[in-house]
Amino acid sequence: MQKESLLKIDKELIENLSELIEAKDTHSILTIFANLHPADISEIINHLDKDDAQYVFSILDKNLAVEVITELDEDLREEILAKIDADRITGIVDELETDDATDIIGDLPESLAEHVLENIDKEDSKDVKELLKYPEDSAGGLMSSDFVFVYNDATIQTAIEEVRKHSDEFEQIYQIYVLDKENKLLGFTSLKTLLTNSLETKIVDVMEEDLIFVTPETDQEEVAEIMEKYDLVSLPVVDNERRMLGRITIDDIVDVIQEEAEEDISKMAGLIDDEEYSHSTLKVSRIRLPWLLVSLAGELVSAVVLSSFQASIEKVIVASFFIPIIMAMGGSAGQQAAIVMVRNMSSNKLWLSDAAKKLFKEFRVAFVNGLASAIILLVMTYMFFSTQLNFSFLLSITLLIIMINATMIGATVPIVLNKIGVDPVVATGPFVSTMNDIVGLLIYFTILSLFYIR
Amino acid sequence: MQKESLLKIDKELIENLSELIEAKDTHSILTIFANLHPADISEIINHLDKDDAQYVFSILDKNLAVEVITELDEDLREEILAKIDADRITGIVDELETDDATDIIGDLPESLAEHVLENIDKEDSKDVKELLKYPEDSAGGLMSSDFVFVYNDATIQTAIEEVRKHSDEFEQIYQIYVLDKENKLLGFTSLKTLLTNSLETKIVDVMEEDLIFVTPETDQEEVAEIMEKYDLVSLPVVDNERRMLGRITIDDIVDVIQEEAEEDISKMAGLIDDEEYSHSTLKVSRIRLPWLLVSLAGELVSAVVLSSFQASIEKVIVASFFIPIIMAMGGSAGQQAAIVMVRNMSSNKLWLSDAAKKLFKEFRVAFVNGLASAIILLVMTYMFFSTQLNFSFLLSITLLIIMINATMIGATVPIVLNKIGVDPVVATGPFVSTMNDIVGLLIYFTILSLFYIR
Repeated sequence: MQKESLLKIDKELIENLSELIEAKDTHSILTIFANLHPADISEIINHLDKDDAQYVFSILDKNLAVEVITELDEDLREEILAKIDADRITGIVDELETDDATDIIGDLPESLAEHVLENIDKEDSKDVKELLKYPEDSAGGLMSSDFVFVYNDATIQTAIEEVRKHSDEFEQIYQIYVLDKENKLLGFTSLKTLLTNSLETKIVDVMEEDLIFVTPETDQEEVAEIMEKYDLVSLPVVDNERRMLGRITIDDIVDVIQEEAEEDISKMAGLIDDEEYSHSTLKVSRIRLPWLLVSLAGELVSAVVLSSFQASIEKVIVASFFIPIIMAMGGSAGQQAAIVMVRNMSSNKLWLSDAAKKLFKEFRVAFVNGLASAIILLVMTYMFFSTQLNFSFLLSITLLIIMINATMIGATVPIVLNKIGVDPVVATGPFVSTMNDIVGLLIYFTILSLFYIR
Repeated sequence: MQKESLLKIDKELIENLSELIEAKDTHSILTIFANLHPADISEIINHLDKDDAQYVFSILDKNLAVEVITELDEDLREEILAKIDADRITGIVDELETDDATDIIGDLPESLAEHVLENIDKEDSKDVKELLKYPEDSAGGLMSSDFVFVYNDATIQTAIEEVRKHSDEFEQIYQIYVLDKENKLLGFTSLKTLLTNSLETKIVDVMEEDLIFVTPETDQEEVAEIMEKYDLVSLPVVDNERRMLGRITIDDIVDVIQEEAEEDISKMAGLIDDEEYSHSTLKVSRIRLPWLLVSLAGELVSAVVLSSFQASIEKVIVASFFIPIIMAMGGSAGQQAAIVMVRNMSSNKLWLSDAAKKLFKEFRVAFVNGLASAIILLVMTYMFFSTQLNFSFLLSITLLIIMINATMIGATVPIVLNKIGVDPVVATGPFVSTMNDIVGLLIYFTILSLFYIR
């Protein structure tokens, strides 16, 4: 079968399918699926509601189910598996590579997980039990224990035979690893090397010895950075004695990069967890509410600050008109500085030893932008609000001070959080902006009280 | 050479190197580099200041320079190339794959670019000129015209010979493409297939015909989505007649995914461009200032709104204490909704035909969180601010209305922007929050004036 263009999965397709599902027209559904890539079938199922998704998955033949299951949304997958009988799950898991099998078994209820582990291939079962020990977001949690290897006395001929023996197990073979008799990793070679050397060549004479590897404890973010930096399609995972444990492939890392970026964006938006499209109203509320309440608590403090300046506000009511400017400008400048700082830290461009230099640069940037904003504010208030010149002047000076202050808070908090072991991206959420609001208003009315209102 | 662990590039290493650079101790520098991966050398150069970077790059031998140049930061690379003589550049570019060569030639001053194009391999020069026609962020801009192919009358034997012939050109060969005599793409095969079938097997009998491909105009974001979804390591690019033009590899796409995520984060922070660590104070100011000025202009409107309610504020000075709560809660709720909506849209989870359903869900979420916040505010103001009960009550109702309103604005603006062809991520910047500030304050004081202040 050849596809002239990529499938467009749209509402119409899903609606047509829903009708077939309602009519339990298994034959038509499977006929449509016969022409689709398994990844497309997964995407379609991800768009169905729970019951329809369960039904559709249940009619797939085992080989297709094996390919579809790995691409399903995690929440939906759990719900689908909850409705399937244990033997079918066992049959599906038995065909998966160990990394995918581990992901799925790890999400099953304990008794079911045990049943599956007892009934799949013994070798795989042992591997999966090992893999289950590692956190999901570590190299150990990402790796597969299926890899092609030869010992260091092998020739090209032996290696080719090894590839042939395992060719059905792997969709892609990126590397053949070379191990010594104690399973220590010595090097690797590519299929290209096997094709371009004579059969009797010793593998150790042609293998790459320039090894890049990680241990199972390595965080997935670091794994992603390494694979990205060195342009690797596969990365070996070894223990402390450099014995080969498994390998991580680039397709898993692409998902990690995507995931980490989404996580950062969620945190910036003040979401305590990733929001899925399928989540219920209450679940979404729970994800969004905590930071809203932090904001609320912080701004109640702002209200206390303002109430303590009640007398000043009463005397100069015009001062209250500029509360939004003070808050918004401090908030924006602080947010910009925090986000840039977090990004520099996460891409390793900022070393903490350089922090003072970087903070001084932030100061200069804040001064330039604060001055530009202050001048504009001075002119605008004097022209359009018929405020007294000395009020406009004080207001503009205050804006400059607040923008510098907010920028420095925004840039410093991520460094401090990092030092005390908290993910610095938290600083880009409502935390810093709320703090900036309180401090900004305090500065604003203190200056007014000292120099303007007598 | 074998590395026991990955190199740690830190300030100490850079400082030691700077001393060697100052002493022009070429020999020691190259001795250090001899043990490093080219990607590490690039990272080191990226951390040096301009003059040192130029010097270090100039002492690299050509083969190493070829590997180092592709990983340099773009701005720095331009400055380094500006100081190198044309023939060295030509020599380096001549060794690059066409996609990398195109990136570099595209950044050179015109006369220099012409010199290089005239002096590199004629075939490559033709390819690069073709590739230069495509925008950098399209499939055409990402693809390389170097790929291994055979015609459809080939046998496995012919394919293996083809691989051997080109094995020096490619570090990795992911696929061998099968074309007909008009260069139309018919299928592909992997090196694994070459190794596991007999030499006389016809390639058309074993090739994969299940083709996924793109045209050169395809946006890089779509390319990334396709490669991610179908777990591809390489993706063919064809013209409208399906004639093979080139192929995109996964390592380039990993960079694209990273780049797109950073771009979104920049836009969310209200930066008009990506801020680089090496940028000057004024350049950083220019990147951050435009959105700050949008904020300033918007909040000047807020000031006008407040001044129009001067009489009300004078009568009920306590109303001004809660301006920060109104602003911050509307701002946060709107920002959360905007970011979630933008993410759903960019991951294709939201179809516009479902927008009404999604907006209704946003309404329910806003109602739940608004109600929770309003109740807390009611209790807190009544207990701690000794406000009148009916003021507290009105204030809380207002908070609920404002949070619902801000959420709906935050969720709707991205959809509208998308409809009129503007990148919806703009909605997550200061634009929506400024709008929410103005509308929120207007609602707040209108309600107070109507129902409380007489």
